[in-house]
Amino acid sequence: MRLHGIVGALHPTLRLAEISYGRRKGSAVSIPMMNVITINVGGTLFQTSLATLNQVPDTLLSNESLLSQNFQPDKQIYFFDRDPQMFHYILNYYRTGELHLPPGACSSSIKKELHFWCIPETHVSECCWKVLYKVQNDMAVLAKLNQVFHDEVSDFCMSKKMAGQSRVRHAVWMFLEYPGSSLPAKLWEKFFFTLICTSTLVFMFETVKSFREVDPDIKTKCNITKILNGTVLFRGWKNELAFFTTRPFLFLSHIDLVLAVIFTIEFAVRFITCPRKCNFLRSLLNMIDLLFLLCKWPSYYMEGYACVLNSTNMLMYIVLKGLTFSRIFRLFRIGRSCQGFKVMLVALKSSSGELCLMVGSFICVTLMFAVLAFLSELREATFSNVLSAWWWAVVTMTTVGYGDIYPVSATGQVIASMCAVTGMVILTLPIAIIGTNFAEYYSVNRERELYGGKQTKCEMMMANEKKGALLTRNKIHHTKVTKF
Amino acid sequence: MRLHGIVGALHPTLRLAEISYGRRKGSAVSIPMMNVITINVGGTLFQTSLATLNQVPDTLLSNESLLSQNFQPDKQIYFFDRDPQMFHYILNYYRTGELHLPPGACSSSIKKELHFWCIPETHVSECCWKVLYKVQNDMAVLAKLNQVFHDEVSDFCMSKKMAGQSRVRHAVWMFLEYPGSSLPAKLWEKFFFTLICTSTLVFMFETVKSFREVDPDIKTKCNITKILNGTVLFRGWKNELAFFTTRPFLFLSHIDLVLAVIFTIEFAVRFITCPRKCNFLRSLLNMIDLLFLLCKWPSYYMEGYACVLNSTNMLMYIVLKGLTFSRIFRLFRIGRSCQGFKVMLVALKSSSGELCLMVGSFICVTLMFAVLAFLSELREATFSNVLSAWWWAVVTMTTVGYGDIYPVSATGQVIASMCAVTGMVILTLPIAIIGTNFAEYYSVNRERELYGGKQTKCEMMMANEKKGALLTRNKIHHTKVTKF
Amino acid sequence: MRLHGIVGALHPTLRLAEISYGRRKGSAVSIPMMNVITINVGGTLFQTSLATLNQVPDTLLSNESLLSQNFQPDKQIYFFDRDPQMFHYILNYYRTGELHLPPGACSSSIKKELHFWCIPETHVSECCWKVLYKVQNDMAVLAKLNQVFHDEVSDFCMSKKMAGQSRVRHAVWMFLEYPGSSLPAKLWEKFFFTLICTSTLVFMFETVKSFREVDPDIKTKCNITKILNGTVLFRGWKNELAFFTTRPFLFLSHIDLVLAVIFTIEFAVRFITCPRKCNFLRSLLNMIDLLFLLCKWPSYYMEGYACVLNSTNMLMYIVLKGLTFSRIFRLFRIGRSCQGFKVMLVALKSSSGELCLMVGSFICVTLMFAVLAFLSELREATFSNVLSAWWWAVVTMTTVGYGDIYPVSATGQVIASMCAVTGMVILTLPIAIIGTNFAEYYSVNRERELYGGKQTKCEMMMANEKKGALLTRNKIHHTKVTKF
Amino acid sequence: MRLHGIVGALHPTLRLAEISYGRRKGSAVSIPMMNVITINVGGTLFQTSLATLNQVPDTLLSNESLLSQNFQPDKQIYFFDRDPQMFHYILNYYRTGELHLPPGACSSSIKKELHFWCIPETHVSECCWKVLYKVQNDMAVLAKLNQVFHDEVSDFCMSKKMAGQSRVRHAVWMFLEYPGSSLPAKLWEKFFFTLICTSTLVFMFETVKSFREVDPDIKTKCNITKILNGTVLFRGWKNELAFFTTRPFLFLSHIDLVLAVIFTIEFAVRFITCPRKCNFLRSLLNMIDLLFLLCKWPSYYMEGYACVLNSTNMLMYIVLKGLTFSRIFRLFRIGRSCQGFKVMLVALKSSSGELCLMVGSFICVTLMFAVLAFLSELREATFSNVLSAWWWAVVTMTTVGYGDIYPVSATGQVIASMCAVTGMVILTLPIAIIGTNFAEYYSVNRERELYGGKQTKCEMMMANEKKGALLTRNKIHHTKVTKF
Repeated sequence: MRLHGIVGALHPTLRLAEISYGRRKGSAVSIPMMNVITINVGGTLFQTSLATLNQVPDTLLSNESLLSQNFQPDKQIYFFDRDPQMFHYILNYYRTGELHLPPGACSSSIKKELHFWCIPETHVSECCWKVLYKVQNDMAVLAKLNQVFHDEVSDFCMSKKMAGQSRVRHAVWMFLEYPGSSLPAKLWEKFFFTLICTSTLVFMFETVKSFREVDPDIKTKCNITKILNGTVLFRGWKNELAFFTTRPFLFLSHIDLVLAVIFTIEFAVRFITCPRKCNFLRSLLNMIDLLFLLCKWPSYYMEGYACVLNSTNMLMYIVLKGLTFSRIFRLFRIGRSCQGFKVMLVALKSSSGELCLMVGSFICVTLMFAVLAFLSELREATFSNVLSAWWWAVVTMTTVGYGDIYPVSATGQVIASMCAVTGMVILTLPIAIIGTNFAEYYSVNRERELYGGKQTKCEMMMANEKKGALLTRNKIHHTKVTKF
Repeated sequence: MRLHGIVGALHPTLRLAEISYGRRKGSAVSIPMMNVITINVGGTLFQTSLATLNQVPDTLLSNESLLSQNFQPDKQIYFFDRDPQMFHYILNYYRTGELHLPPGACSSSIKKELHFWCIPETHVSECCWKVLYKVQNDMAVLAKLNQVFHDEVSDFCMSKKMAGQSRVRHAVWMFLEYPGSSLPAKLWEKFFFTLICTSTLVFMFETVKSFREVDPDIKTKCNITKILNGTVLFRGWKNELAFFTTRPFLFLSHIDLVLAVIFTIEFAVRFITCPRKCNFLRSLLNMIDLLFLLCKWPSYYMEGYACVLNSTNMLMYIVLKGLTFSRIFRLFRIGRSCQGFKVMLVALKSSSGELCLMVGSFICVTLMFAVLAFLSELREATFSNVLSAWWWAVVTMTTVGYGDIYPVSATGQVIASMCAVTGMVILTLPIAIIGTNFAEYYSVNRERELYGGKQTKCEMMMANEKKGALLTRNKIHHTKVTKF
Repeated sequence: MRLHGIVGALHPTLRLAEISYGRRKGSAVSIPMMNVITINVGGTLFQTSLATLNQVPDTLLSNESLLSQNFQPDKQIYFFDRDPQMFHYILNYYRTGELHLPPGACSSSIKKELHFWCIPETHVSECCWKVLYKVQNDMAVLAKLNQVFHDEVSDFCMSKKMAGQSRVRHAVWMFLEYPGSSLPAKLWEKFFFTLICTSTLVFMFETVKSFREVDPDIKTKCNITKILNGTVLFRGWKNELAFFTTRPFLFLSHIDLVLAVIFTIEFAVRFITCPRKCNFLRSLLNMIDLLFLLCKWPSYYMEGYACVLNSTNMLMYIVLKGLTFSRIFRLFRIGRSCQGFKVMLVALKSSSGELCLMVGSFICVTLMFAVLAFLSELREATFSNVLSAWWWAVVTMTTVGYGDIYPVSATGQVIASMCAVTGMVILTLPIAIIGTNFAEYYSVNRERELYGGKQTKCEMMMANEKKGALLTRNKIHHTKVTKF
Repeated sequence: MRLHGIVGALHPTLRLAEISYGRRKGSAVSIPMMNVITINVGGTLFQTSLATLNQVPDTLLSNESLLSQNFQPDKQIYFFDRDPQMFHYILNYYRTGELHLPPGACSSSIKKELHFWCIPETHVSECCWKVLYKVQNDMAVLAKLNQVFHDEVSDFCMSKKMAGQSRVRHAVWMFLEYPGSSLPAKLWEKFFFTLICTSTLVFMFETVKSFREVDPDIKTKCNITKILNGTVLFRGWKNELAFFTTRPFLFLSHIDLVLAVIFTIEFAVRFITCPRKCNFLRSLLNMIDLLFLLCKWPSYYMEGYACVLNSTNMLMYIVLKGLTFSRIFRLFRIGRSCQGFKVMLVALKSSSGELCLMVGSFICVTLMFAVLAFLSELREATFSNVLSAWWWAVVTMTTVGYGDIYPVSATGQVIASMCAVTGMVILTLPIAIIGTNFAEYYSVNRERELYGGKQTKCEMMMANEKKGALLTRNKIHHTKVTKF
């Protein structure tokens, strides 16, 4: 075929002669006049021979009994009330044996047409899988996004139907949970976010030494030095104890306490008004809130009232105190008022395969370079062991390059160069795919916002409930064949 | 449906039998002959049944009275003078219940057709929102760019109509403001930009110690050591005072003075000749110029004439001196002669949502890693507090990696690795979207330059003014239906 | 032409007059009535003149004898049973002299049509090469991916046909080689991968000093200090010998031994059951496994039984011990159960040209900057020689920036800045192309998974074997011309 | 319009009533029967009213005299032998007043059609500028690439026509200049490239101290210490003189000499056989070669024969010696045998605007951050002056992060964070555009290779010379209108 094409390109006249010879021999006899048929698809006429239609067995066009049902004897044509544009591609399948699809068309409409003409999807030519795949992928993205924002839409709709006490409860829930539902809710969200930021700042400044003072109650609370000397646990924990023997300035503690009270009330109100308690507790953000509150109050109790911190409750106190660090994760509440952040999380979740691929190949390749660098730098003792070489490889491959460890031998430097360049390639490839995924989610979400917004969806739901007849509108029986 | 498709794929013959049975039963009776209709859309014939047209209520085709207006009794067809290609998709909506759109078509033409056939945009199938959205987005980009370059075009047009004194004033304005308007303007822009660069260089070399000498007038000006010892304000400001007790070489000061004079004159002339004084002062670049001049001259005055700098005017002098640093922002005047820079700014401004998302998630994630690293490195005291851990997290996540702080424990190193890799992902995703936005603005701007350039636009504006009749050309009544 | 277009844009009336004059003069006489012809292509009518068809010689339409074969005297038209949509473009070629192609269409269908109409591919206009190229490229990607996964599909098919002893052997092979074939195979893969990770961890901890003890048998084994002092070879190998005079803790050695036994058995079973021994040994992963085992056991033997390690077998022991490091590459077995990793390798292999370009230009450019930086920093002696400057250039260009060497002179810093920025450009450009390649492989692979999966392919193979007649279905004679 | 659409979406029935009212009032009277016309464009029928055609004045269709020339009185239709698909869009322009273009179509074919229908390009709707622009851009890329590879193609063609002595000369030229012309040429290129690499390696090892020895002739050559002490020029040049008082090992010098001889001969032969001496000397690579040779030989002469190096010729010797470093640029000869490299250079050259934008904004933004960081770190004296702050800003923004300077104050660290993040954005945006440009050049080049290769082009040129008649084939008169 390839060779043939080249020959044809050079001497088309020769090939023409050959073809005309072949035709003269075969065509006049093999195709009788009665095989020629005309098909009217939605007003457009197509002409072909019955021989062509029989090239693909077990389809609507090659089944004579089905075909004859749509035959109009007066005009001697077959009539189908279908899309004539798609039929071009269907008929070309019979003519050439390859089922191509119109580029850029929607896969759902393609599927309906293929289904009507009884051609299985597996007959689609390899080069057109892309057409089938593309829109299917887009729809999957949209479905995932709809699922993420489902609660919001259903709550929004619910708010229009409720009355009495439940209406008040729902209004409070909408006010606290959905910043976009009203202006006061938006302002409250802004204020609450400021509180979270303050809480985070307080927490950070509590660790700064110039904001801490020696705790005067330290002796009455517990004989900490005794614990230190006596217990194996605390041996070597000098830096940690610098924090336990001091306390932050009182105004920081007071702010902290006020904020804890507000957070507790807000959490309680949200829980009480929530229409779906189950989902509420399953949400990661709420679990973090709960964990924070469950740790905060006992640690306050122990700080304030427990006079003697012995080695048993000391450990518990440390654990509780440590877990209050979970408040840092509350910053991700930003995602509640920021769609982009939510979309990013959904996109990252749906790209988990690519992320695994990235992390997996990153670990393997760094480990490989670590071993190679360790071996090549053995004499210079740059790396004390393979683990430290691994740390170096990670720092090099991500191009962070702290400079705490670096190769000094020529071989080591060559390996380091390869490591850095390989890192750029290995990390860029999956990130490019994740980036494309995210871009797709992002743009589909913007389309969703524009054309399938909360208002539209809600109206659609309510309209459907009113007149059930409308629902059937989108389910028109599509295998109907008209006759006249 | 899905299952059905698979069954059909395996045994198409079985399904064919089932379909033919279903048809035999229903079709012959349910569709009477008189329901079949022919529609002529712009010369192309479409054939369908009235039953199909009634599938979507409340549209032009399902409204019998409207339909009958376009009926031609002699030919027994309905005629519409519309685009036949788009009508394929309209008719398929009636046939399949899903409204798909031609891929790649312009949304404005699609909207006109949908409006004509009385089909609301909300009926468009989810998979085709993309088609509607794409061009709308492009148009928004073009509109923003036109707005940015609007002043330039209108000034350009104005220059052709003016006469007398105002003509001279406008010519000076064009000369100073639009480097692209003439060759001398371009040369002046080049020269002026050199002056700004010189000013910047002078300013930089003024801070280099080898270009500074001890100020002989220091004692007559103020008893600085007295101020130092007496005032709380200056305690510890040793390095700052190294600058105040010395002065740059005289030739640098002289260049500086000459440049300040030129800049003042240029600014004054531009302000006087400007046709829109309001916009002039609202422009960021002009505000920077003004700030620079308002700070420069008083500080000169204080340097030269004020003999005694007491602690009050000393502070004022420092603030004024400090604000002259604003001259550095004048470098952005480069944007006036460089379209790409302007386009980049517009693209960044329109991507503010994505930038916020990037900065927001960056802050949250670095803070999270800072806390985790701080906790895991508590024993080694790598970080003095969470703030310093945050600085480390930022340096790691942006892969800058100065090496001033780095984790030493195994846990800390694992967290650092995660931090670096996460940083690549978190930062790349929004940047990819911003990059795509910028690329779009950039290419739309190039198209604008090519096909909708200054000359074309201006002519269009002038032509429209001359013969107002032409204006109506683009507003052809598009709901007109022809009858014959 | 360009100038003409502008003139036309300004004064279309003028141009119209000129055209109408030209037409009046020529057209009425030159085109006789009998030249006008009608062509029916698959039901769609096209009308043109014979003069137009003769514009491109040596093609089917300009060859009168071929054309007359398809002439229908009763209707006075030429009939061809081909795609009418593609014929639009074919006929436009005759009209305008440029052969454009429908955008987005499949190149294979285009080629068939061009072949039918006897138009060589080289006639395609330059602006439409892209259409031809695109799908051809996609098909090449798919072919490469099919080749990579060919063994898996054929083994999968084979497993359905085997019986008796060979069935058991094949089942074992499938169980060990294809984790996706069954649930137990998946579990085994997970378990085995854990073993490899354990082996890697053991190997890493063996190099950590706190996991090593002084070898008590060191003296009975060999008089190592004697060797050290006596042999030139070991002079200066102090760090290496720290490893040879100590041994890892016994529990690490024991785990290592058990794992080595399991790996040996697994390898043996896989080799015995493998249906293609040749391919098995040619596989890189298996070669690494074999190398590891061939080095592991002799080194055990030498450690355990050889009493005296003289300078001869000492060297051999070191080499063997070093080669057991090859176990690190076994981590790439991850690729067996992870399609993404395989696809990444295939994509990188097919992008070898771009990788070479990247590495080549990287080496040249770093070398150039190394020389420039070396010259500019000669006085400060920052770099001891060009080689060390090269190392610095690599570290700078990849933005790793360890900070072990950095320029201090102004010129050197300018060169370093240029080096860093150039590096970003030089490295990003080819990586962008590689990334695009990878994204294409990745998405084609996902399409392959969805529409051309293992099951489908296998069924296709088996179906084809059953009824050979079906095979011809896809080879419909496509140059047939219908007559009636 | 927008509001109208929403109203229509909510109550289509209302709007329908309004429309039908409007139509009843106007249509029956305003459009007389005789205005309706049928247009046959290449066999496809279009129907519209004369009123519609008159909506756009000064075009072919609105000009009655031109229209009537193509009128066929017997069938009462207008016939045009043009593309019917494009005419859909032309006619829609008359119907809706907006000229849209078929998406993805080639701009050259669009231009021809617009030209035929006498519609100026400026009438194209804004949303379709993209269609016009896209292919125009592709063609510009192809034209640039053809220009780059023009010499090669013309030389290739010339080699088929020459005879006698000039044939030999041309064969030598082809052998030396085009590695792709024959197998020996490829081998020679590989060998020659090895020589260049060797030369580079020799040059690098000459700077390594362990490859240098004290020059025994140093005293007889010149009294260097005297020069040192006596001349102001050399004060402080200690490190440079370490190179002048030693010499590389003799075997390195010998290799260097041999290579210099070979390079000289090769250059001479290439110059003699070159058919275009002018272009030869203008080529950058040849200029580097020439510079290298012109510096190498005099420096050999001065080393070998000049006994006394006084301060005058010492300086000259240093300059000459320094310029031999230009040999490093000879590595770019790799580009001669590597198309990808050439394409990268062309793409970078054509992206010079974007590169300037990147470098310009990079300089401005770094300078801004330098000043800000300098001010905020004034007290800590981290930066000695703004220049050093600039160096720091560059190192931070490119994320190299050597760690030689880093901010320590809180404000400084915040500015550094902003600097690093801004750097990622500012540098990524233009690089993304450059990357896209490069990708386009790269893929167009691959298409060029496949479909417009050397062989094809050459044959085309030769074929055109043989029969000049064929040349006109591609210039079919495209404004011809058929009549019958």
